[in-house]
Amino acid sequence: MTEKTIPDIVVSRLPVYLQTLQLFQKEGKTITSSQELGEKSCISAAQVRKDLSFFGEFGKQGSGYDIGYLSSQIRSILKMDRVWDVALIGGGDLGHAIARYPGFAERGFRIKYVFDSDPSKIGQKVGSHTIVSTENMADTIKKSGIIVAMITVPSRAAQSVVDQLVQAGVKAILNYAPVLIDVPDDVRVETVSPILQLEHMTYYL
Amino acid sequence: MTEKTIPDIVVSRLPVYLQTLQLFQKEGKTITSSQELGEKSCISAAQVRKDLSFFGEFGKQGSGYDIGYLSSQIRSILKMDRVWDVALIGGGDLGHAIARYPGFAERGFRIKYVFDSDPSKIGQKVGSHTIVSTENMADTIKKSGIIVAMITVPSRAAQSVVDQLVQAGVKAILNYAPVLIDVPDDVRVETVSPILQLEHMTYYL
Repeated sequence: MTEKTIPDIVVSRLPVYLQTLQLFQKEGKTITSSQELGEKSCISAAQVRKDLSFFGEFGKQGSGYDIGYLSSQIRSILKMDRVWDVALIGGGDLGHAIARYPGFAERGFRIKYVFDSDPSKIGQKVGSHTIVSTENMADTIKKSGIIVAMITVPSRAAQSVVDQLVQAGVKAILNYAPVLIDVPDDVRVETVSPILQLEHMTYYL
Repeated sequence: MTEKTIPDIVVSRLPVYLQTLQLFQKEGKTITSSQELGEKSCISAAQVRKDLSFFGEFGKQGSGYDIGYLSSQIRSILKMDRVWDVALIGGGDLGHAIARYPGFAERGFRIKYVFDSDPSKIGQKVGSHTIVSTENMADTIKKSGIIVAMITVPSRAAQSVVDQLVQAGVKAILNYAPVLIDVPDDVRVETVSPILQLEHMTYYL
């Protein structure tokens, strides 16, 4: 693998392929083709072949891809073959929904702490978690070695929370606040943007 | 405007520009450049110019873009210059968070109904809404002329709920279930995929 030459847009499609492959596995399939994988992933077959070729030879001409093998390879490439501990900051409605949703843990993202700055929320139970104060957040995160975080704080607080997370060593942040966040070059932020997705669709209405 | 020739990838960037422009407006700016707009939107200046050129002449060489004008033009292109009534299906944790979150209405997406199939949830208050049964969902949606929906139902129920929505005339669906959904060609689905966004980031860890 030559990580340095792989365009980010290719990397961004790997989780999509993985999701489709896992669906095929659930359906009991063992072999797939770039046509089939592409169709179900809404990506062209040629693009699928080109994307996967960045990471080596996964399929043989004419015989298709072994779903189990390809899926485990993509999991390994994406570092999804391990469990990531996650800090969740923001214990409001959305934070509750996330903390109680089993889907993240099923895909290897285990929420370890739920932080909030609101004294009335601290000590509250959320699923199997107890909300803890953001006061010692940086210390707690540093000590536990957590490098993945999700934030569901109000927009006005998002940048300052992110700054604290970066200070604490966090390298990947999933941001649910509808704002643009500045981070150093070695930290990545992805923003969950349902409103932008809705606006994309209304164009066609 | 020649809508037919505009690639979807360009349309998908317009909401991002709009978000940045609205941020600039909040900051009191009145003029911006493709450099500045691109930098804040994480898109190259050349791409910004190319994208906006699909929709006409928004800026003058050397004098930049008028933020108010450009923003209102994009709002109009995206049909964001009106209020869209939205049906929300799924009154669980995430449905609650969405129904109580003011951000959607602020951007023109007004949740009109919250549906759930669980008898124990029907009649429950969620913010200013009362959860109603999915039993008469199709009829209610048809009569109200709603064509935009969000679904926060369990994965196993997602396709059948979408089928009902399509039957009821819904044309744009924001899907929070981590599954692939089939719809006819005249209906659009966008899936909110926080887990795929996390997996994209772990590649770099």
